Amino acid sequence: MKKYTVTLMPENLKLQAVENATLKDVFGEYGIKFEFPCAGTGKCKKCKVRIVKGSSEDEVLACRFKVTEDVVVEIPKMEQKHEILEEGVEREVELDPLVKKRYAELPPPSLEDNRDDLKRLTGNVPLKSNLKVLRELPEKIRESEFKVTLVTWKDEVLAIEKGDTSLVHLGMAFDIGTTTIAGYLLNLSTGAEIARVSALNPQTKFGTDVISRINLASQTPDGLEKLHREVVNELNNLIEKALAGTDFKREDIYAVTTVGNTTMQHLFLKVQPKYLALAPYVPVFSEPVVVDAAELGIRINPDGKVFAMPNIAGFVGADTVSAALACEMDKYDELRLLIDIGTNGEMVLGTKDKLLACSTAAGPAFEGVHIACGMRGATGAIDHVKIEEGLKYTVIGGGKPAGICGSGLLDIVAELLKVGIVDKRGRMAKPETISGPAEIYKDRLRDINGFLSFVLEEDTATGQPVFVNQKDIREVQLAKGAIAAGIQILLEFFGAEVEDIKEVFLAGAFGNYLKPESACRIGLIPPELEGRIKPVGNAAGVGAKLALLSEREYERAVRLSQNIHYIELSALPQFSQIFAKKIVF
Amino acid sequence: MKKYTVTLMPENLKLQAVENATLKDVFGEYGIKFEFPCAGTGKCKKCKVRIVKGSSEDEVLACRFKVTEDVVVEIPKMEQKHEILEEGVEREVELDPLVKKRYAELPPPSLEDNRDDLKRLTGNVPLKSNLKVLRELPEKIRESEFKVTLVTWKDEVLAIEKGDTSLVHLGMAFDIGTTTIAGYLLNLSTGAEIARVSALNPQTKFGTDVISRINLASQTPDGLEKLHREVVNELNNLIEKALAGTDFKREDIYAVTTVGNTTMQHLFLKVQPKYLALAPYVPVFSEPVVVDAAELGIRINPDGKVFAMPNIAGFVGADTVSAALACEMDKYDELRLLIDIGTNGEMVLGTKDKLLACSTAAGPAFEGVHIACGMRGATGAIDHVKIEEGLKYTVIGGGKPAGICGSGLLDIVAELLKVGIVDKRGRMAKPETISGPAEIYKDRLRDINGFLSFVLEEDTATGQPVFVNQKDIREVQLAKGAIAAGIQILLEFFGAEVEDIKEVFLAGAFGNYLKPESACRIGLIPPELEGRIKPVGNAAGVGAKLALLSEREYERAVRLSQNIHYIELSALPQFSQIFAKKIVF
Repeated sequence: MKKYTVTLMPENLKLQAVENATLKDVFGEYGIKFEFPCAGTGKCKKCKVRIVKGSSEDEVLACRFKVTEDVVVEIPKMEQKHEILEEGVEREVELDPLVKKRYAELPPPSLEDNRDDLKRLTGNVPLKSNLKVLRELPEKIRESEFKVTLVTWKDEVLAIEKGDTSLVHLGMAFDIGTTTIAGYLLNLSTGAEIARVSALNPQTKFGTDVISRINLASQTPDGLEKLHREVVNELNNLIEKALAGTDFKREDIYAVTTVGNTTMQHLFLKVQPKYLALAPYVPVFSEPVVVDAAELGIRINPDGKVFAMPNIAGFVGADTVSAALACEMDKYDELRLLIDIGTNGEMVLGTKDKLLACSTAAGPAFEGVHIACGMRGATGAIDHVKIEEGLKYTVIGGGKPAGICGSGLLDIVAELLKVGIVDKRGRMAKPETISGPAEIYKDRLRDINGFLSFVLEEDTATGQPVFVNQKDIREVQLAKGAIAAGIQILLEFFGAEVEDIKEVFLAGAFGNYLKPESACRIGLIPPELEGRIKPVGNAAGVGAKLALLSEREYERAVRLSQNIHYIELSALPQFSQIFAKKIVF
Repeated sequence: MKKYTVTLMPENLKLQAVENATLKDVFGEYGIKFEFPCAGTGKCKKCKVRIVKGSSEDEVLACRFKVTEDVVVEIPKMEQKHEILEEGVEREVELDPLVKKRYAELPPPSLEDNRDDLKRLTGNVPLKSNLKVLRELPEKIRESEFKVTLVTWKDEVLAIEKGDTSLVHLGMAFDIGTTTIAGYLLNLSTGAEIARVSALNPQTKFGTDVISRINLASQTPDGLEKLHREVVNELNNLIEKALAGTDFKREDIYAVTTVGNTTMQHLFLKVQPKYLALAPYVPVFSEPVVVDAAELGIRINPDGKVFAMPNIAGFVGADTVSAALACEMDKYDELRLLIDIGTNGEMVLGTKDKLLACSTAAGPAFEGVHIACGMRGATGAIDHVKIEEGLKYTVIGGGKPAGICGSGLLDIVAELLKVGIVDKRGRMAKPETISGPAEIYKDRLRDINGFLSFVLEEDTATGQPVFVNQKDIREVQLAKGAIAAGIQILLEFFGAEVEDIKEVFLAGAFGNYLKPESACRIGLIPPELEGRIKPVGNAAGVGAKLALLSEREYERAVRLSQNIHYIELSALPQFSQIFAKKIVF
């Protein structure tokens, strides 16, 4: 047997390869870490490497390229790997997808073994089958000479495919946020993420907050239908986008999980959210809803299923359940706190024995809404600010600033508080009253559009100054007051003290980028916890992926939704008092 | 309180009634047996009585008519009751329908009890719900002021109805025979049978036997679709027919059970039966199939379900399972034999610990097919014959005979055997060879259309003589040989003797009307068993009804289908030998 040398660049690693081995084989033999998201079927195109010395110098797929001479191969940095690591709670699970594929070579029927086709297919464990499968079954198994792949969910056969397609098995997880929709295309036969896509939630054009969408859905005749269509269409766009550039087809996807707040889940399923906006704020359902993809118009395999994950209450949705799953809130002996700050601030507090949740109307200040120069955490946003012998800030993407995003807003309020330009009650000092070291910032204080404002930058991308004003400070106070009050009430109901909390998981983009020091200085999070804060990224999205990859994790999410006890803050007489106290910085 | 006298005719029974009591109340108080199939909702119109003395003399509904004066009431004979009693295996079951209705008055939501609508509806036991239910749920419960009726199957909510509709709850059981379809409309809130309907299976126009229909379904492009349509349309007609004359609507029906042979079940579900006709004769499915009525085009409530009951093998279908259920074949310590003679002869032998089944190609002789003067057991058919000092016969419906049905054919062969006109090997004696007491029947023997024939009657409804010929005798021999061989093989496999069989259940119209004496004389059934034969009528239909009335009976049918071990006679080398022996009378 002939052997050749494969040289890996830039490490200049020399490997021995037998003739006609694929690069995948060679990497495998030497334990070289390299991801083959589609398990080497050549479909995902993710294992591209460059042959830099050999008879043809070109990009090739490591899973397909066969060694027939000495070659030098350049391996790219696995960018994708790094992205995954950014999610603080990404964790390993045993691969046992919610929807499974299994290849089977069936014994052909004989007079001695004349079981029916379905039993032959499913073994003697009775599986349920729909009419469509039964109608296709006899010809499908015979045309494929009794070699077929079963697609199953629980004890149901969803579909049969001819031959062995068990390695071509995709799923898509969606986090449907009020503002943004994130989608993750996963290879369910390897667990690898093939693509990550996102888009603005197109419902935004009908209103930026959930209340305006609930109103549209409940007060106009086709409002609900319209909002439903918008999100379904966007999910379909994202599916296409995620598949683009791979050889996979949408028929290869049999499972979709969705998480989102309770309103988003209602709108996605075209279920009337009207009563979410009226006291006592009851949802139509909290349970997980499993629907045929075809019935919902989700364009994956028409025999596939959509799993809308369970909610907890009207204002604590599947996104929170999913984040709690990602953070394994059900496994700790000692107290953990999970906070997801978006338009509302949802939080879960507890241990493996007892979990409590609440939702606080934090308002969308940290998403940049209702803030004079507020914007989302995108290119041009000031995301961090420091006042220390002058004012320093960083801008996402570099360049000139165009506005302030949540983490920047938090910083600037914390810094103004530190230097005394804002006082404990949230009042911004008039320039003439400022003395001492803060005097150098005096010029930055001025009246803009009738509000006392603190200017961060005059030289901006928009030509207009970027600033915070007195009204912005008030918005931050309301948001932080609501969250801090929520934390205190959860602690009271649990019967614990701040010090008992061993770790604070901060979910969401804002949670990921905020400076813990700033959050603690303004009292958004109790200062005692500053060293225990762990940003966990889009934990809701991670949970939706985990549920797709593992039936056990999906069931765990269902249990979490049932076991997390919801506390309705508006039903508590003490809430407004605590809230009023917590508004103070 | 005023009291009146209600006089019941023709019994002249005097009852006391308080003013404004309904006749139903009065009957109930005195324990008068009278059926109210719709539980007194006034819908089924089955409790009609005639007021023969009173201020208005007319037909009234006993459940609605209120006593306000002395009245004389004439009660009709309960014909329907008698019909039911004709089924030898009709038995009482605890009412626990497969599809259930439950009325609930829900506590309205409050801040203290803000469970979601679905949990409020279903209690804290999680029930699954489909999207349609979720979409209707919030408005339905609020419009009905939280008073609703749940329609459920297992852990699934099928539908919600406003108010209390729990007494309006119907089901329909169908026995889809190759020749005839029988339908039973049941009130699932009382267990009463509201109507019984039947029709020729319209597939008959494409061929009288299953093989011709399998060929049509597998060899012509739209054959399967056509056969499926025919039977679905006929079931819809029968549903309409059963509802006619009642105030019930098809929306009141949420459950349909169907039984039939394996081919009929395949065609009903539009599943290709092709491989049932090719060795090794495997069906596509044997398992029960539960389908949305709407998907199948069965016009009951669009949220209702159709339960196609389980089969055992290619030639032992759900009708046999259902008959075995009706006869409780799974409850006996000592051996029982169930025989259903139709186009094939299916039989089940065993005890509660072990059950065996086989199907014999008996041929449709006893259904009148391939018999010179053969006809179904309908008006004009000779159904019983006796030769004893002359030939006597009876005709269904009185009048002149038009042909011979199965039981008549069996009798005439047995009688000809007795008087020596047919010998043990099935040969008909030539008139010139007959001597002794049988000589008086000599004139009845003659050549008709080239076959030696025995004439039963010249003066007929058709103007043509009614007779049996040599070929008919051969057909009977083949049929009886097949069945007798089947019985012997089942006994051999079970390891038992004829004498061990304690009871023989004879199912089907033929089984119901045949003379056991004749069946034993020709050896269709071993003569030792003559005193142990019990006709059980349409046991398959009874089983389909039981499954509808009781979830436990339905599950029992599923277990029966799994536990009855099928023996493929064509795979047995000894079969043809035994068959050849059993052809001899």
